[in-house]
Amino acid sequence: MSKREIKVYSDLSGANAVWADKIRKLREEKGIVMLNLIGSPGCGKTTLLEKTVESLTAKQRFAVLEGDIATTRDAERLHKLGVMVSQLVTKGACHLSAKLVHKAFVDLPLDELDMVIVENVGNLVCPAGMDIGETAKVAVLSVAEGEDKPAKYPRLFREAKGVVITKTDLLPYVSFNMEACLDDIKQINGTIPVIKVSAKDGSGMGEWVKFLTSFSKNQH
Amino acid sequence: MSKREIKVYSDLSGANAVWADKIRKLREEKGIVMLNLIGSPGCGKTTLLEKTVESLTAKQRFAVLEGDIATTRDAERLHKLGVMVSQLVTKGACHLSAKLVHKAFVDLPLDELDMVIVENVGNLVCPAGMDIGETAKVAVLSVAEGEDKPAKYPRLFREAKGVVITKTDLLPYVSFNMEACLDDIKQINGTIPVIKVSAKDGSGMGEWVKFLTSFSKNQH
Repeated sequence: MSKREIKVYSDLSGANAVWADKIRKLREEKGIVMLNLIGSPGCGKTTLLEKTVESLTAKQRFAVLEGDIATTRDAERLHKLGVMVSQLVTKGACHLSAKLVHKAFVDLPLDELDMVIVENVGNLVCPAGMDIGETAKVAVLSVAEGEDKPAKYPRLFREAKGVVITKTDLLPYVSFNMEACLDDIKQINGTIPVIKVSAKDGSGMGEWVKFLTSFSKNQH
Repeated sequence: MSKREIKVYSDLSGANAVWADKIRKLREEKGIVMLNLIGSPGCGKTTLLEKTVESLTAKQRFAVLEGDIATTRDAERLHKLGVMVSQLVTKGACHLSAKLVHKAFVDLPLDELDMVIVENVGNLVCPAGMDIGETAKVAVLSVAEGEDKPAKYPRLFREAKGVVITKTDLLPYVSFNMEACLDDIKQINGTIPVIKVSAKDGSGMGEWVKFLTSFSKNQH
C-alpha cells in the first residue's frame, strides 16, 4: 500500500446535499422563501402558476425556476405573463438536482426577491427524496389522477408541507373519492394543509395564494 | 498486487441487462408476448386493464404483473375480476427492474400463457429507459395531462411501439389539442400506432384489444 492519503469521492447524493446547503444558506441570508412544487406530469403545475401570477405579484416579489426534461415550453408560458423565469433542463434526468437549481438560483437578482417557486420535473417519485435547499416541498395532485395516489406514492406526501388538489372543476366527470384521499393524506402526514383549487374556474385560488405567502416573512 | 483473479462487479444497469435477457430468452422459448405499460400516475393504466379483461380473455391466455412503489391496491383490483395477477412492490424505486420482473415471471405458469402485461410504476421518465425483456413498451397518456407530454417526455414515446390516449370522455372538459399531440408523437416516432380510448364509455376499446393481440402469434 502506498502512504498517500486516501481520497474520498462522495456519492452523488452527498454532493447534492452540499449544493442544497449552499442554496439554503444563501436563501436564509437573503430572506428568500423557496417552494418546490412536485407532482405528476400533467397535474396542472404550470397552469396553476399561470393563474397565480396576478394575485401573487401584488403580495410577493417572486421568480420561477421551471424544471423540464427536454423543453423550454413551460418557461415560455410564464415568460409571456411577464414572470421572471428560468428554465432548468435536466436532459433526461427525472428530477432537479440541487447543483442545477443552485446554478440558476445564484443568477437571480436575489436582493430583489421574496420568493422563488421551483416547478420540479413531472414525477411523483424521484423529486420527493431530493433536497434542493427549499423552504418546503408542496405536493400537487389532480383529481383526474384518482384519490389513491397519496397512499401509492407516500414519500412525497410525507415530505410535503402542503398538498394542493387541482382540477376540482373535473370532479363531476371523474371518479375521485375526496374523503378517502383526505383520509390517506391525514394518515401519512397528520394535519398538513390541503388546498383544493380549480385554475379553470378560479375556486380555491385565494386560499392557494394565502398558503404560498404564509411561508414568507416579507408580506407586502 | 496479489495474483488472485480480478473480480468484476457489474453496475446496476449491466446487471439489469442480464436479467432482461433471461426474461427475453424464456419468453421466446415459451412463445409469450410481454407488454410493458408505462404512463404517469393516474393516467388510467389499471382502469384500462380492468376494462380489457373480458374481451382479452376471449382471445389470449394472459397474466398481469402490477408494479407499485408501496401498495398492493392495483393487483387487488384485477384479482377481483379473476385475472391471474402478481404485485411487484419496488419499495420506493421509481421503475421496475428486470430482476424483480424475472422473479415474478418465472413463478407464472408459463406453459399456460400467451401474454404477460406489465403495468409499470406510474412514471413517465424512469421506466422509459429500462429494459425488462419485454416485447414492446406501450406509452399511456391521458387527455387530462395535456397534449404537450410527448414533446416534454420524448424518450418514452420514442421507445414505445404504441401509444394509447386514455380518458377521451374528458375531452369536452379539458384543454387537450389532439392534433398537436398526434403531430408531436409522429415527429418523435413516425408511424407508431396511436389508439384513443375511454375505459368509461367504452369507445376505442375494441381497437385497443386488437392492438394488444397484434403482438401475439397465438390467436384464439
